Amino acid sequence: MATPSPGYALTVRVETPSSAGATGSLVAAVAAAGGSVTALDVAESHADTLVVDLTCDVVDVGHGETVTDALAAVPGVTVRKVSDRTFLMHLGGKLEVVPKVPLKHRDDLSRAYTPGVARICRAIAENPDDLRRLTIKRNTVAVVTDGSAVLGLGNIGPGAALPVMEGKAALFKQFADVDAWPVCLDTQDTEEIISIVKAIAVSYGGVNLEDIAAPRCFEIERRLRAELDIPVFHDDQHGTAIVVLAALTNALRVVRKDLGNVKIVVSGVGAAGHAIIKLLLAQGAKDVVACDRHGAVHGGREGLDPDRAWLAANTNQAGFTGSLKESLAGADVFIGVSAPDILDGDDIATMAADAIVFALANPDPEVDPAAAGEHAAIVATGRSDYPNQINNVLAFPGLFRGMLDAGAHEITDEVMLAAARAIADAVNPDEVNASYIVPSVFDPAVAPAVAAGVREAAR
Amino acid sequence: MATPSPGYALTVRVETPSSAGATGSLVAAVAAAGGSVTALDVAESHADTLVVDLTCDVVDVGHGETVTDALAAVPGVTVRKVSDRTFLMHLGGKLEVVPKVPLKHRDDLSRAYTPGVARICRAIAENPDDLRRLTIKRNTVAVVTDGSAVLGLGNIGPGAALPVMEGKAALFKQFADVDAWPVCLDTQDTEEIISIVKAIAVSYGGVNLEDIAAPRCFEIERRLRAELDIPVFHDDQHGTAIVVLAALTNALRVVRKDLGNVKIVVSGVGAAGHAIIKLLLAQGAKDVVACDRHGAVHGGREGLDPDRAWLAANTNQAGFTGSLKESLAGADVFIGVSAPDILDGDDIATMAADAIVFALANPDPEVDPAAAGEHAAIVATGRSDYPNQINNVLAFPGLFRGMLDAGAHEITDEVMLAAARAIADAVNPDEVNASYIVPSVFDPAVAPAVAAGVREAAR
Repeated sequence: MATPSPGYALTVRVETPSSAGATGSLVAAVAAAGGSVTALDVAESHADTLVVDLTCDVVDVGHGETVTDALAAVPGVTVRKVSDRTFLMHLGGKLEVVPKVPLKHRDDLSRAYTPGVARICRAIAENPDDLRRLTIKRNTVAVVTDGSAVLGLGNIGPGAALPVMEGKAALFKQFADVDAWPVCLDTQDTEEIISIVKAIAVSYGGVNLEDIAAPRCFEIERRLRAELDIPVFHDDQHGTAIVVLAALTNALRVVRKDLGNVKIVVSGVGAAGHAIIKLLLAQGAKDVVACDRHGAVHGGREGLDPDRAWLAANTNQAGFTGSLKESLAGADVFIGVSAPDILDGDDIATMAADAIVFALANPDPEVDPAAAGEHAAIVATGRSDYPNQINNVLAFPGLFRGMLDAGAHEITDEVMLAAARAIADAVNPDEVNASYIVPSVFDPAVAPAVAAGVREAAR
Repeated sequence: MATPSPGYALTVRVETPSSAGATGSLVAAVAAAGGSVTALDVAESHADTLVVDLTCDVVDVGHGETVTDALAAVPGVTVRKVSDRTFLMHLGGKLEVVPKVPLKHRDDLSRAYTPGVARICRAIAENPDDLRRLTIKRNTVAVVTDGSAVLGLGNIGPGAALPVMEGKAALFKQFADVDAWPVCLDTQDTEEIISIVKAIAVSYGGVNLEDIAAPRCFEIERRLRAELDIPVFHDDQHGTAIVVLAALTNALRVVRKDLGNVKIVVSGVGAAGHAIIKLLLAQGAKDVVACDRHGAVHGGREGLDPDRAWLAANTNQAGFTGSLKESLAGADVFIGVSAPDILDGDDIATMAADAIVFALANPDPEVDPAAAGEHAAIVATGRSDYPNQINNVLAFPGLFRGMLDAGAHEITDEVMLAAARAIADAVNPDEVNASYIVPSVFDPAVAPAVAAGVREAAR
């Protein structure tokens, strides 16, 4: 299913004879090798030769080499240099810390720093509530990871996770003017993570936990929610749950079914699956079956961990005991947050009429979206190259904007339901259809709508 | 010694009859009350009345009320509103976190975030040295405090310290384009501070310890230097020591004395005093006497803590045992980093000819600078309203700029001596005189010169 992506774009600088068809041959060579040319810039033009920068999307590292080799094989062409545009973008990091106050002359310095700042410190020491008013705490969120479950890459550690946390912080600022800062922790000890986050939290207005492996993430989130007086959010759980609920709300509108009456199968009981199920139940879902690699979670299974025991007690009222594939028979909704390629079109064909399939394993979904689409009414994935991308960026910026604005301490179910409702309602009723159940991540109206819903629910 | 300062500036909005002398009476009233008018803006002009914003520097809170009362007492004048300009400047905090990469459309998102960012993560996981190249680590410094010794305010805690750390971060960016981030820790346990800083250090290129009380700060700095692979700097120690050495270098040039031959008395053996003495010895000072509240530190004193024992072993070779005042007799240099008003002019009069007095207790120096100036050739303070301000902002931005550029791990004595030399040499030989021994903090040439010296020394 791999297609060329701007996530892997190359710029190849080549020297070519300056004949009439020269650049045409270059574009043709890239296309023949499966690359997608997005820009062609002439860097130098001489009497006999041209130097051309060809920017093209490719699939992966190996494919980049194939495309480069294809260019080198064009008669008369020499490849001078290959630049990876993604690496170029990340050089030197993606964030900077910028003063909001002028520091041009002595009076500025006297007010922003010593001696004037001493009065600000004294005011906060006397009245700790002023911290939120007079410092960055008002608008700042810590993006905390231990690097144990980064994207689909697994336990790559806190340093290798930093580019993701920087990207997350950039999205916070871009979409909701929240100042977010990466906190990458070189420990994977639950108690140590909890005590560090508690110790640094004083200067933050919120905590966004990110890419921390289950089940550790559950305990960390539970404890920090209980022990801190600022909102704590685990994006892999709550962000995903909010956007899934928003998408499902609109999908059910399209097929005219009601959340309280549909049968929902969730594949995956990690951070995301757990949170999705909890939020669906909070919104009124009645018939949910959770599946892990051993099949449906039910009360009769031996040795359930506490999280699965909770699922057994709160889902699968019928006590279904079969496999994931068996559980799909007659289901209205499939939500996968598990593993690639575990289902095929025939499995989807066993679902009820007007089935809804959210295959969110990334980058490779639980079922090929094209195959699923032959049998389901609506298909959504986590990918940007199919319709209906379930992307957490729809939720977390606006949610924290609303929480910070409200000065609210706790992200309750009501807050998350309000966020999901705002995202769903950002798609107009006359726009909702099988290929458009969530707004575009670049829709500037989404984050303010989420923030407004959250502010109201939090008060 | 208190004078009106822009660190405490008010804007008072008053309504006054629009007679010819109206604004003149307002300015006169402020001046008579001891305030200093810095701006007069007419906000509204009506047939009979004017609304005027008077901005004035005052001494402190009580004096601000005196000035406001004086304005209210002018016949026909009504005070409408009093705004504190320093508080206004700090509202909402002084820093923001800004993306350096565009996030305007899907291709940006695919490169800066998923899926493209996964390749950056994988590259770092495979080659950890790439962390410095591909993330904010390259240019980012943690400004770490536990809030235990903030300015002259003492142990006010990590929240109340945040405005200072924000100001520090703003100075880092303004003077040396270093991205610095406040890390305020809600613990004052030495081991916990060490382990937290170690756990968060992965995403930083350096650590600036700030306003941590002695003796805890010594152990924290020593251990972090030993256990981290990035530069660790305690500004209250090393920053102060560097600027003091720079100022002393030029002061000795003015009075034509040599560091190796002068007698130096240091009052205060906390973080700053200790570091100053170490750096003076490293630069070749031979005759140093350290004094605490019990007088000269010498080997014969009972119950010396390890830091004072080190001082006893490495200073005061003559074994002098008297008081601070007694130790001043015949001294060439006095450096005070201790307490206000512990000396008077008569004490300074006992020093050698062409005495140098650095009275750095802030805001109130060890000796009245005017009284000291009657007997000493050169007087310096930590204050901005006297000549020769010893201000750490001359050192830390350029020092970290140089360390980050060099990718250097350790701030050695050689690095600090090079920084001091660069600051001293930033004053041209033909400019150096008794009132100009350090460059202006706003001299844009200082930080690059310090960075260049540090880069060379660090390699």
